[in-house]
Amino acid sequence: MTSNPEEQKIVVVGGVAGGATAAARARRVNAQAEITILEKGSAVSFANCGLPYHLGGEIEQRGQLLVATAELFWNRFRISVRTKHEVKSIDREQKTVTGRTADGTTFSLPYDRLILSTGSEPVRPPFFEPNSRNVFHLWTLDDMDHIMAAMRDRPVQRATVVGAGFVGLEVVEQLVHRGVEVTLVERNPQVLGPLDREMARMIEDELRRNGVAMHLGGAIKSLTYEDNIATAVSLGDGTCIPTDLVIVGAGVRPRTQLALEAGLTIGSTGGVQVNEFMQTSDPNIYAVGDMVEYHHGVLNKPMRIPLAAPANRAGRVAGAHAALAKNVKDETSSMGSVFGTCIVRVFGLAAGSTGLNEKACRAAKIEHRAATIQATHHASYFPGAKNLTLKVIYRAGDGKLLGAQAVGAEGCDKRLDVIATVLHFGGTIEDLSKLDLAYAPPFGSAKDPLHMAAFVAENDLHHLPALTEFDSELDGMQIVDVRNASEIAQLPLAGAHWIPIDELAQRWTELDPQRPTVTVCHSGKRAHIAACWLHGQGFANVKNLNGGMSMRSR
Amino acid sequence: MTSNPEEQKIVVVGGVAGGATAAARARRVNAQAEITILEKGSAVSFANCGLPYHLGGEIEQRGQLLVATAELFWNRFRISVRTKHEVKSIDREQKTVTGRTADGTTFSLPYDRLILSTGSEPVRPPFFEPNSRNVFHLWTLDDMDHIMAAMRDRPVQRATVVGAGFVGLEVVEQLVHRGVEVTLVERNPQVLGPLDREMARMIEDELRRNGVAMHLGGAIKSLTYEDNIATAVSLGDGTCIPTDLVIVGAGVRPRTQLALEAGLTIGSTGGVQVNEFMQTSDPNIYAVGDMVEYHHGVLNKPMRIPLAAPANRAGRVAGAHAALAKNVKDETSSMGSVFGTCIVRVFGLAAGSTGLNEKACRAAKIEHRAATIQATHHASYFPGAKNLTLKVIYRAGDGKLLGAQAVGAEGCDKRLDVIATVLHFGGTIEDLSKLDLAYAPPFGSAKDPLHMAAFVAENDLHHLPALTEFDSELDGMQIVDVRNASEIAQLPLAGAHWIPIDELAQRWTELDPQRPTVTVCHSGKRAHIAACWLHGQGFANVKNLNGGMSMRSR
Repeated sequence: MTSNPEEQKIVVVGGVAGGATAAARARRVNAQAEITILEKGSAVSFANCGLPYHLGGEIEQRGQLLVATAELFWNRFRISVRTKHEVKSIDREQKTVTGRTADGTTFSLPYDRLILSTGSEPVRPPFFEPNSRNVFHLWTLDDMDHIMAAMRDRPVQRATVVGAGFVGLEVVEQLVHRGVEVTLVERNPQVLGPLDREMARMIEDELRRNGVAMHLGGAIKSLTYEDNIATAVSLGDGTCIPTDLVIVGAGVRPRTQLALEAGLTIGSTGGVQVNEFMQTSDPNIYAVGDMVEYHHGVLNKPMRIPLAAPANRAGRVAGAHAALAKNVKDETSSMGSVFGTCIVRVFGLAAGSTGLNEKACRAAKIEHRAATIQATHHASYFPGAKNLTLKVIYRAGDGKLLGAQAVGAEGCDKRLDVIATVLHFGGTIEDLSKLDLAYAPPFGSAKDPLHMAAFVAENDLHHLPALTEFDSELDGMQIVDVRNASEIAQLPLAGAHWIPIDELAQRWTELDPQRPTVTVCHSGKRAHIAACWLHGQGFANVKNLNGGMSMRSR
Repeated sequence: MTSNPEEQKIVVVGGVAGGATAAARARRVNAQAEITILEKGSAVSFANCGLPYHLGGEIEQRGQLLVATAELFWNRFRISVRTKHEVKSIDREQKTVTGRTADGTTFSLPYDRLILSTGSEPVRPPFFEPNSRNVFHLWTLDDMDHIMAAMRDRPVQRATVVGAGFVGLEVVEQLVHRGVEVTLVERNPQVLGPLDREMARMIEDELRRNGVAMHLGGAIKSLTYEDNIATAVSLGDGTCIPTDLVIVGAGVRPRTQLALEAGLTIGSTGGVQVNEFMQTSDPNIYAVGDMVEYHHGVLNKPMRIPLAAPANRAGRVAGAHAALAKNVKDETSSMGSVFGTCIVRVFGLAAGSTGLNEKACRAAKIEHRAATIQATHHASYFPGAKNLTLKVIYRAGDGKLLGAQAVGAEGCDKRLDVIATVLHFGGTIEDLSKLDLAYAPPFGSAKDPLHMAAFVAENDLHHLPALTEFDSELDGMQIVDVRNASEIAQLPLAGAHWIPIDELAQRWTELDPQRPTVTVCHSGKRAHIAACWLHGQGFANVKNLNGGMSMRSR
């Protein structure tokens, strides 16, 4: 512990998430520093991830979202908080920030170390009229207050949510909880970009089950306004959606104006470039949160990842580093890599992702493979077992883990966190298969879904047998459907040769061992047994359909 | 994928857990092999971890515990199952096993590869009368059936459970669910040996809250029998516990008689010695499950770990290796390390452990430290947040992670699985602090409890400030209690100087900076802030009380 580091002035611009964390951490490592937070808004810190949940009433009190007050910052940390203080420019020569308060007064403040946490702002599409009375983003506490006020002023029977990302889907869910009829418009052909399409389908099904109307691949042409009130949303295909409220979640962009004007280096991603201690190109200026680019651990290149968890860690790293007079390496940790680990609850399901999805692998030209399994989140014989779909993506050849996605009612977060941990260490499918996980019937299975996914991937890597996909060319192949009669009645597969799995050892001679063969069942588990059997009987080319019919039905 | 490996005879002795898995895996990699399972009992495979839950009716149907039948093994895998076949000896020269069926017929069977999965058996204490009508173990399906029958025959108002390990506590919980008054007797001074004492206290509190009477450190002197029915349990201290049923879970020992008589090497732990492919000292004989010793990943030495998950993985490894004609390394994975990861549900709480606890560190003379935190399992502002206590144990100096324990209503399994994954990679506290975990308010916090624990440990390692423990010498130290008035009223701390955290920056001059000082709050979080502050003001020696008063109250 460094004793009495030199007294210094630390100024933090922006309190939300990373900023407040940075200030509090700076105080922990330096009791003498003069620490000030300058915040444009009226609250120094609030739980922005909680905003949608107050909208729907799941978080009942607005006050629950206010995580810390200016008074607490002063009393507990001797950190001076000035809200409604917007910083307009940085003088790097003089080491001074200047700006203006909400009431128009200008201010100027010297710093030794400056920490920028100006965050991001929602992308505003052309149809968004700033002075409309019922078209909103949901990004700040003020946004939330405006939406709540609008809903109190005018009854909202029908709402349109634009954008099916995390915030969009959380808003959809909460509006449905309030009894609003919701239409979701997303310009991409799927919800939840971090997921691959077949995984996102499960969330789309869940949205439909909960009465949400959806327009995927839907481009908004215009909004009809009457007296600054939007009354309808028109799509490019001519669809007209009458509406009482529009909430737009069409992505965010980093707030880098201040950094840009100060001449700090902006990376190719559009975020501020920082080193492992969150220092910008000016070592006395740090930046954290949505405005920066992080090191992506799988792609090994900078990426913008506007999520709360990395912002908090970045704040902690920057705060400690800025507050120490010298760069004492062993007393400040570095940021490390980020993997874009994310999760969202959508009605009864959770969906999440970590690392790369297949789209990203293709874009980065990484030769990858994928294995998808269906399993129960705890022992199937124990009451309350819920289905979980887990997809793991790994490098062809050596099986290095690249990413994963999970969708299910329970236990998705756990599996994603374990995979994120394997990614942190650059581990492989083999590592995943060997993890010694906690098992008792209420919590998991002796073979956890993570193991099952690793086993399927291992079989694939060792061609025991390899997996194939629905979108591959199945024409001309001998398709062997090993499901039972009731499964086939529910979801037939045309052109397949049907031999129930428990008859295959007796009836496999009905098949042609020379033809390329694909085995199919509901999830891929029985099809794997079948493929192994046929291969063992000398079939020249046998593959197992990844994820089975459960993936095709979507 | 190896084509047509030579046909061979694979014999598996014992179907439960590892055995059946080995046989099924052997078939997957070798369609020609002749595979036979010889099982002493009447069911080839059953969910032994589920037995306690049928006792209490949580798993309603006995049939749910029967995971696979002999018929399914034949139809699906062409694996021949012979139940009620007990193997009595192995002739390694002739490669033959011989034994006797339940009806007394002898049998003999040749093998090319033999897989032993004879499991473990409960330790039978001296007071256990084998012919008693109401004293039981709960280890096999038969045991369960006998207990259920006894409870039907004679009403059970009061039961005594001997042994507070996993099975013991599961049985306690299920008997309470059935309305039985339960007394728990454990000869050690705490429940749940894998946990350190202060963590186990939370489970003891939960047992008391649910009406369970406990005798910890209680040695059983004798049982009083009337007509082969135990009516009372007498302890060494003179206590007499009237009872209608006694269930004994006093640990298990490996069933190694067959292996021993065959001259296979038994390790120093009492388990059969195996290599990474589960081969015994005879390379044609494999052993898996509770009867073997595994490689413990932290201790780096063999250890017996009688748990279902490693048994399953071992079965998979052995089955693949045994079934391949040649040892094709890249087609069979190896066992890897085991960390003793375990979890149990006890009424409304879960408790679990992975890696080493402090007791084990002391026994192994590993210089270790520990950090304990209290946090909510998901965002504290989101409805339904439950408290979670997480203890991480790490090597002094470099912070290599050694183990962890968790107790709480929700999310223990997730945190243990992540830590088990860090242990797999030999990671450190710094690794833990950098993990990119999935966050949304319903699933976690931007700073997960795992991060919080890592941060506390990092501060400790960097003396920022260091942690100290209640059992350390606090006499003569200046104790600074920074809790609020109501907390102190509920649980006072004599001899402490009271300064609420938010007054410390103003009132710290009341304290003596020369005296060694310890800061205290409920969980250690505010005390950390206080300790940092005092250190920064030049206090010579400040420490933070690990886990705070929350750990002392137990």
